[in-house]
Amino acid sequence: MQFTSKRLGLSSDARVVIIDDDDAFAMNAKPGDRIKLVHLKETGEIDGETVAIINTATGTGLVKPGEVGLYDEIWEQLNLSSKKKTVDIQLLSKPKSFEAIKRKIKGKELTTDEINEIITDCTKGALLPIEIAAFIIGLETQGANDREVVDLTNAMAHSGEILDLGEEVFDKHSTGGVPGNKVSLIIVPIIAAAGLLIPKTSTRAITSPSGTADSMEVLAKVAFPKEKVLEILRKHNGGIFWGGFLNLAPADDALIQIEKPLNSDPFPLMIASIISKKMCMGVKKMVLDIPCGKGTKFPTIDDGRKFAIRFKDIARKIGIEAICLLTSASQPIGHAVGPAIEAREAIYLLQNPEQGSTSLRNKSTELAGYLLEMGGKAPEGKGQDLAIDILNSGKALNKMREIIQAQGGNPDISWENIEIGPFVAEMKATKSGFITEIENYHINRIAKIAGCPAAHKAGVDVIYKRGARVKEGDVIFKIYSDNEERLREAVKYYNSHNPQRFSGMTIEKI
Amino acid sequence: MQFTSKRLGLSSDARVVIIDDDDAFAMNAKPGDRIKLVHLKETGEIDGETVAIINTATGTGLVKPGEVGLYDEIWEQLNLSSKKKTVDIQLLSKPKSFEAIKRKIKGKELTTDEINEIITDCTKGALLPIEIAAFIIGLETQGANDREVVDLTNAMAHSGEILDLGEEVFDKHSTGGVPGNKVSLIIVPIIAAAGLLIPKTSTRAITSPSGTADSMEVLAKVAFPKEKVLEILRKHNGGIFWGGFLNLAPADDALIQIEKPLNSDPFPLMIASIISKKMCMGVKKMVLDIPCGKGTKFPTIDDGRKFAIRFKDIARKIGIEAICLLTSASQPIGHAVGPAIEAREAIYLLQNPEQGSTSLRNKSTELAGYLLEMGGKAPEGKGQDLAIDILNSGKALNKMREIIQAQGGNPDISWENIEIGPFVAEMKATKSGFITEIENYHINRIAKIAGCPAAHKAGVDVIYKRGARVKEGDVIFKIYSDNEERLREAVKYYNSHNPQRFSGMTIEKI
Repeated sequence: MQFTSKRLGLSSDARVVIIDDDDAFAMNAKPGDRIKLVHLKETGEIDGETVAIINTATGTGLVKPGEVGLYDEIWEQLNLSSKKKTVDIQLLSKPKSFEAIKRKIKGKELTTDEINEIITDCTKGALLPIEIAAFIIGLETQGANDREVVDLTNAMAHSGEILDLGEEVFDKHSTGGVPGNKVSLIIVPIIAAAGLLIPKTSTRAITSPSGTADSMEVLAKVAFPKEKVLEILRKHNGGIFWGGFLNLAPADDALIQIEKPLNSDPFPLMIASIISKKMCMGVKKMVLDIPCGKGTKFPTIDDGRKFAIRFKDIARKIGIEAICLLTSASQPIGHAVGPAIEAREAIYLLQNPEQGSTSLRNKSTELAGYLLEMGGKAPEGKGQDLAIDILNSGKALNKMREIIQAQGGNPDISWENIEIGPFVAEMKATKSGFITEIENYHINRIAKIAGCPAAHKAGVDVIYKRGARVKEGDVIFKIYSDNEERLREAVKYYNSHNPQRFSGMTIEKI
Repeated sequence: MQFTSKRLGLSSDARVVIIDDDDAFAMNAKPGDRIKLVHLKETGEIDGETVAIINTATGTGLVKPGEVGLYDEIWEQLNLSSKKKTVDIQLLSKPKSFEAIKRKIKGKELTTDEINEIITDCTKGALLPIEIAAFIIGLETQGANDREVVDLTNAMAHSGEILDLGEEVFDKHSTGGVPGNKVSLIIVPIIAAAGLLIPKTSTRAITSPSGTADSMEVLAKVAFPKEKVLEILRKHNGGIFWGGFLNLAPADDALIQIEKPLNSDPFPLMIASIISKKMCMGVKKMVLDIPCGKGTKFPTIDDGRKFAIRFKDIARKIGIEAICLLTSASQPIGHAVGPAIEAREAIYLLQNPEQGSTSLRNKSTELAGYLLEMGGKAPEGKGQDLAIDILNSGKALNKMREIIQAQGGNPDISWENIEIGPFVAEMKATKSGFITEIENYHINRIAKIAGCPAAHKAGVDVIYKRGARVKEGDVIFKIYSDNEERLREAVKYYNSHNPQRFSGMTIEKI
């Protein structure tokens, strides 16, 4: 049935279009039914098509009979430039891929074709959010074998474009969960300075106070079209980009959009998600940082080990050589948490390799070391030494300046010029003693209450970490915010949920 | 934050409200976030409250800053009568009940409190559709023990009002899947005529060509407020009502809304759904008809038996005595499928007990017989005889006329006056032989293509069923429709998917 397009000027992830009640009746469609929308060029070629859900209007003039009301997201997908265009709407039945989802829920192994159908339908929006949720929970409860995960990975990677950057492409990835894990800002310039290609794509923070893309954005731009990314990489061997802009493995994004609110990240999807995104960037060799412990995806080392063995194996089957490292998640890497303050800590280390944060230097050079060994730049066991040399020599700093400039930032940036705050609260030790525990969860909460990640200059500085001896009255923690009210709230939270625990301190009074 | 209400005049199940981008930013909310809306009376009392999801508008004037755009469903829940009222909006975090859902997904047993929280949040809309989907798939994959199912049932029943109709309340229910199962139209008048109370609530068709409520609606009204239902029941001992209007166990409806599109109906929810709705109507003794076989929820007798044993046990724990009957689902009950034609077949049997459909008479009186025995009206093993007596004596017909009148229909209705069609196609046997198979699926499809259930007068008449000997040229199937085009389509489908299979006939040619 043909409709005239009407832009509603509304934004919604719900993939909904609105038609008149009578039109819906004529189409034999009811609210909630799935439809295909096609916008044809005058030549008859398809200009845009998408799948959506019908809602109906009850005659308020918002949508007249014969009109289809479109949210911005659908409007763009249909490539509708002017106000009134003809859109063809066709009622769809439940996609065949849902039968495959039901089979997974019943504990059956899915065929390659079934997996391809599910992933294709995720990409084009043919599966409803509740159907994708059913798939995710099906995978969480029933699992998937290696063959299925390999198929999932391939299907997800091929849901978008795959870049060909040659045979020697390196990368580093973290499964997350540790505050202040800004190691990519150190590793990328080290690896690129050594002459290896490292096309680092990263995420913006979703539930954490800062993602690598957020910190890099303090120093330079991170959203570039594919061509510009390739140009930067060819010229400088490295770059740090926001992956979201590149539309890598769009099926993975469609799944993540449901996984996040369900707080569900089953192994098969976690593995397929990481590897498919790396495949899209043409990565052939990688180091995977797997923080284990409270607050991460792997509460115990055993959980992390199980994941690592599976990840390595599946990566190999896909043609990616992976080294997986189980790392400690007991406290932040370095001291800074928040977009700008993390960029500042990283640049400080690049500028002052011998004085910067020990944990940041150690972890960054260790991970970089494995990549250097995989790339044949150092013999086995000597990679970290080379990484430290590159850092100490200033070559990593120079490479970082080069990358910052290529990405439109100021290459002359110095750590002192990276603004944080401007509002600051200094928290003092109320007694003397040793710090024995750090609560990452509270650190993240404080940073977020202070405004992270949206307020780039907000953040926290965990001045003393585990094992440190402090005296009553020492400043042990700083909170930065762009807003006095938020700062007050963050201080209030700090005082009631102390993230630094002292030896002999009561943990909780009930 | 306070907003001025604006009715959008749109209908959507999505539980979405629309606010201006800047307002969302000020609230620290993003599209997809969960909010609580409260509408206060001038006295300060709460007039209406509900939970919804935020969408944002991009400044097209649909929603101005300070306004909240409301879909009809939310508008009604907030009890907003005039155009501009103040609505208070508050950002909500993920409800605690979602943690319980995650525990179920991980295979843990849920506590009574956790189940109550989940059901409460389903009722008030605090759980997102994808979260409810996660719960349903969690139950499908991990199951629930009897204690959990009892708790689920209690929680669902108490999500709405529970009628008190005394100690002796009877009912009959079917798990569905057989076309033309119009037995309630015979059972209710038999039981009520015997002096037992039977407050039959039934559904309208969702995926089938006709629900009991659709057929009853051909004869009388079915949507009544609670007070009127009670009045009819007290006066006449029976009635056939559309349960949807009574808002019984609203949590169950919220779950069904997600179960249906997921085509998921795990035992714990199936049992809790049936029993909770019966609890709401005060039922104490019931017969459950469990059709088993292809196209039903129980492909094998074993599946049906497992369900029946569990159902009976849980009903007993809730205080309901249940007799479960595994019945055949191999072909329609009687011959008619479709709202009006089924009503006609039932009234025909009531008017002509000795000539009406044998299968309809046998099944109805058998089920009624068990209820009569449970109610002490007949000794064990003699219930069906009494049911046949009541039917043959005309008492059931008189009771049905009484009920039809009480429900606002014409008590003098006779089967000939129930209109069907008006367009009819007569399908003839293309060869002589015995009918050995009936494909229920195709019968349902044909009835639906002809216009069922929306077009009450559409339907099919399966003139010959299994075991019948027919001669070439005999009219063996009739299709009725209110629309010539639909009738043509239905005939086309009949010809390519013959629902009556003859002995020695090829099943499929590939």
